[in-house]
Amino acid sequence: MGPMRVAVVGATGAVGREILKVLEARRFPLSELRLYASPRSAGVKLPFMGEEIPVEALPEGPLPVDLVLASAGGSLSKAYAPRWVEGGALVIDNSSAFRYEPEVPLVVPEVNREAIFRHKGLIANPNCTTAILAMALWPLHKAFHAQRVVVATYQAASGAGARAMEELLTETHRFLHGEAPRAEAFAHPLPFNVIPHIDAFQENGYTREEMKVVWETHKIFGDSSIRISATAVRVPTLRAHAEAVSVEFAHPVTPEAAREVLRGAPGVEVVDEPRNKRYPMPLTASGKWDVEVGRIRKSLAFENGLDFFVVGDQLLKGAALNAVQIAEEWLKGP
Amino acid sequence: MGPMRVAVVGATGAVGREILKVLEARRFPLSELRLYASPRSAGVKLPFMGEEIPVEALPEGPLPVDLVLASAGGSLSKAYAPRWVEGGALVIDNSSAFRYEPEVPLVVPEVNREAIFRHKGLIANPNCTTAILAMALWPLHKAFHAQRVVVATYQAASGAGARAMEELLTETHRFLHGEAPRAEAFAHPLPFNVIPHIDAFQENGYTREEMKVVWETHKIFGDSSIRISATAVRVPTLRAHAEAVSVEFAHPVTPEAAREVLRGAPGVEVVDEPRNKRYPMPLTASGKWDVEVGRIRKSLAFENGLDFFVVGDQLLKGAALNAVQIAEEWLKGP
Repeated sequence: MGPMRVAVVGATGAVGREILKVLEARRFPLSELRLYASPRSAGVKLPFMGEEIPVEALPEGPLPVDLVLASAGGSLSKAYAPRWVEGGALVIDNSSAFRYEPEVPLVVPEVNREAIFRHKGLIANPNCTTAILAMALWPLHKAFHAQRVVVATYQAASGAGARAMEELLTETHRFLHGEAPRAEAFAHPLPFNVIPHIDAFQENGYTREEMKVVWETHKIFGDSSIRISATAVRVPTLRAHAEAVSVEFAHPVTPEAAREVLRGAPGVEVVDEPRNKRYPMPLTASGKWDVEVGRIRKSLAFENGLDFFVVGDQLLKGAALNAVQIAEEWLKGP
Repeated sequence: MGPMRVAVVGATGAVGREILKVLEARRFPLSELRLYASPRSAGVKLPFMGEEIPVEALPEGPLPVDLVLASAGGSLSKAYAPRWVEGGALVIDNSSAFRYEPEVPLVVPEVNREAIFRHKGLIANPNCTTAILAMALWPLHKAFHAQRVVVATYQAASGAGARAMEELLTETHRFLHGEAPRAEAFAHPLPFNVIPHIDAFQENGYTREEMKVVWETHKIFGDSSIRISATAVRVPTLRAHAEAVSVEFAHPVTPEAAREVLRGAPGVEVVDEPRNKRYPMPLTASGKWDVEVGRIRKSLAFENGLDFFVVGDQLLKGAALNAVQIAEEWLKGP
């Protein structure tokens, strides 16, 4: 395939802006770039390859492009994506609207690249927490066969969008000046707090964010036998998610063997020199394409187990980068 | 026993100041209160029951009191506590200097009150993370028998002392004004970051903070058979520690049964109405004597398992309150 006509829907959002940067940095082969957002944002110009590209109000009908990278929320995708597909575009959707539909591939290219080529016009980009976890878990699963996974997350404000990042900054400022911080983007004020509530609560007591880790890991790995329990917690960081992970494997495993496996895994950077104060952190993983994995040690809870800490940029591998990578692999072909 | 002559060593520190407030709020029966700190702080006056009590430089020898509440670091306690004991005082020490010595009781009164009366002059106050976890885990362990525990922590700056709390605030302010935050009290800048490094790294790849949870839970519970794995993470909160906990039990358990057990547990507040946005958080648990427990749900990783979230004030149940409670129980007698 030659250069593509590409549309970014939700171009002015936190993920949309990162998609532009990733397309530019990776020199994605495009012949035309159209930016769409709500009518409110129409007329805004966003920089791309030295030009200023105007944002258009999203039209009702199909889009005049070959590829749509959509990041404008689930209800918008649900309504519009079928029209874009009918119009002939491949849609890579960052929302959760289609992730669980059996005929829609849900893809982390490093894990299940082959699923891309089964698409029927629509490919789903996974939840950020899941994508970041999958980068570390999949190579270990292939090598040692994961049976049980317990994960506790430290999720950044960016997961709730650009407005939420802004709220964290402005409300932290208010707190420091002796005023009570307010909460609009979050269920409670986030400055100097942690909130164990992301997305809606389900009947089983888990949040939808927590269940996404279970549902999506099963679908991406093609293996529903792994027992996964997650606690998803919002913390006052800006754009990188951290996850404390404990895994029980079927096969014997050592931290050394795990490090060797992860050093050979694409998209993973092993940052595991605790004595030099080097371990994964939002401070170092923000803005980075690779996911940082470290604090790798033998689990004290499981016989064949590992504990580790993984941190990835929520807006990059957790969203924009993974979406662009799916498009790149699709261009390369099966 | 009648009213006591009490000394607070490390009176100007974050824990020391809370000890004064707790003694006052609980009307601890004291006949005299002496405050000690480093010579640098001598002359400072601290408020207590409407008076201003001067801080004295800690003398080399024994102290003229019946009870010493010490919170001035491990090396100071190691050097001085034996002299205070020789001088006839009961020493309740908040450092880790003596916690693992077999003849020194390590006590959370709600768990192992009876151990208080085996003291030989010295009683150790547990690590904050352990004390807060124990409040939720012990009642559940008694009811359902915990076999495996996986815990990931969200630990506040207060665990590193008053200067660390100040650093979090001032460096957050610098960050918001476009300057790079600095780190002296922490291994890396803490504002808008999380740091999976508290206390020194051990040979097995765990930090000492993480191993304290294992060692101290075993000692306090009198049960070394529970397999515990911890990840201890510093987060940008001020004074309440949060912990995401997954437990496998020997006996069948339901969230309803667990809630009932915890509702009857002293020092525990069940905060578990997710649909009303009520769950444990540093925002609500700070300044509170009780430890908040919520997000109680059936584990998806273990057959007989629970996941829950616990938050407690690090300076109170994690330090000052527990120390004063030990003294209160000692006064009541066996």
